[in-house]
Amino acid sequence: MKVVLVFAHPEPKSLSASLRDVAVQELIGQGHEVRVSDLYAQEWKSEVDRADFPNWPVEKRLVAGAASNDAFHGDALTSDVKREIDNLVWADMLILQFPLWWYGMPAILKGWVDRVYANGFAYGVGEHSDKRWGDRFGEGNLAGKRAMLIVTAGGWEEHYSDRGVNGPIDDLLFPINHGVLFYPGYEVLPPFVAYRVDRFSEADFEAAATQLRDRMRAIETTAPIAYRKQNGGDYFIPSMKLKPGLEGASASGFSLHVSKSKAAPF
Amino acid sequence: MKVVLVFAHPEPKSLSASLRDVAVQELIGQGHEVRVSDLYAQEWKSEVDRADFPNWPVEKRLVAGAASNDAFHGDALTSDVKREIDNLVWADMLILQFPLWWYGMPAILKGWVDRVYANGFAYGVGEHSDKRWGDRFGEGNLAGKRAMLIVTAGGWEEHYSDRGVNGPIDDLLFPINHGVLFYPGYEVLPPFVAYRVDRFSEADFEAAATQLRDRMRAIETTAPIAYRKQNGGDYFIPSMKLKPGLEGASASGFSLHVSKSKAAPF
Repeated sequence: MKVVLVFAHPEPKSLSASLRDVAVQELIGQGHEVRVSDLYAQEWKSEVDRADFPNWPVEKRLVAGAASNDAFHGDALTSDVKREIDNLVWADMLILQFPLWWYGMPAILKGWVDRVYANGFAYGVGEHSDKRWGDRFGEGNLAGKRAMLIVTAGGWEEHYSDRGVNGPIDDLLFPINHGVLFYPGYEVLPPFVAYRVDRFSEADFEAAATQLRDRMRAIETTAPIAYRKQNGGDYFIPSMKLKPGLEGASASGFSLHVSKSKAAPF
Repeated sequence: MKVVLVFAHPEPKSLSASLRDVAVQELIGQGHEVRVSDLYAQEWKSEVDRADFPNWPVEKRLVAGAASNDAFHGDALTSDVKREIDNLVWADMLILQFPLWWYGMPAILKGWVDRVYANGFAYGVGEHSDKRWGDRFGEGNLAGKRAMLIVTAGGWEEHYSDRGVNGPIDDLLFPINHGVLFYPGYEVLPPFVAYRVDRFSEADFEAAATQLRDRMRAIETTAPIAYRKQNGGDYFIPSMKLKPGLEGASASGFSLHVSKSKAAPF
């Protein structure tokens, strides 16, 4: 497979960078082609602003979605964004790797999403009307490709468990897994998460590296999270509310949007 | 009250900016003091990196948490971050206003959190050991103050409803409301959310402005979301798992962490 790994950590000698190298080496060892976007090394610009849309008239009020759509279809996006889009089109799989800061992505990675996910490319695809709301959540330009998160967290695994005070890790990552990756069509593999990394011993690192290598060896065979497709029959259209009776007895919140009948075996 | 409003939108003539002005004018009209941090206008730096910690030795591996702690306690944070921290200490209430981009904050606002929430100020407060994990989630340096989100979303309200395909808005905002605001001690008011703002008519705007003014008039009296305090007896320590029997019959996921007995009347 062709894999692009987008990496967001400011320190080249960090534990995150070491785990990235473990993942990349394992992928290459398995015969995959790998491109890495190291956002800090690339001095990635995080903020969506006028400079992203050089053809947008200076006297015109900036409407980011419209400007993005014009620039995408007019081949007028900036070169840094174009390069990332080319990577996404090239790759069969996208990996986002980041330290969990304040229960989400570091700003630089959020800025990669905000800027690379152009209107017409990652959203605004398909019919948008009072009757239909686009090809998204399982459909879109990135359908048929896979994606996965590699996350490092300072906190304890228990604090991120089903009843842990932080909230369950799968729910905390839902806005990314479902909202960022599944949205434009990716099949989303369960995330790899390493906890308490600030207190990692050498042995802790080796254990995490072994688990990560296992995950990298299984990127083609791991069952994706069984998110429901927006236009696959489970939702009323156009309200996009889940039809009654599809959920398991205990499902509520985000877990409603994972099909129990297709649940992955882990 | 003293209110600081942190605003994240690239266009000064945007609908978001107009709603900000509505909120600020109403607050001032009610006799509150208001400071606005307009992140785009301030050319806010989004990325946590070495430049944030001028006293951290160049030859030393950057450990962001440790560097942040040193800089906070050594009064060596950069002037832009210090100014924001001064605002948070000054204010009785924090409002974060932003357009919902990819189910979260724009990068520039995430970068405000990543950089302003210094170690020793917003986290790393209190004892951290195998027996206790800090003063957070209801305790901390910002306890006794209030906070609230003002959010504009392009999508339909139904898509963000309890069974909507995006996931419920309260769950999507949980990592911010609970993870960013409740964490350092804020009491968190229910968010103000305006939907389908890209298709707002004049009348839609006036209706939203009226609702927003009502919310601004009630900042002192609105009941906060009844998040459970980490160290208030509802969680086992140190696992920080919710004790059995405290949740309502239907609670799971993030809603476990809202006390039903203290539920706000809306």
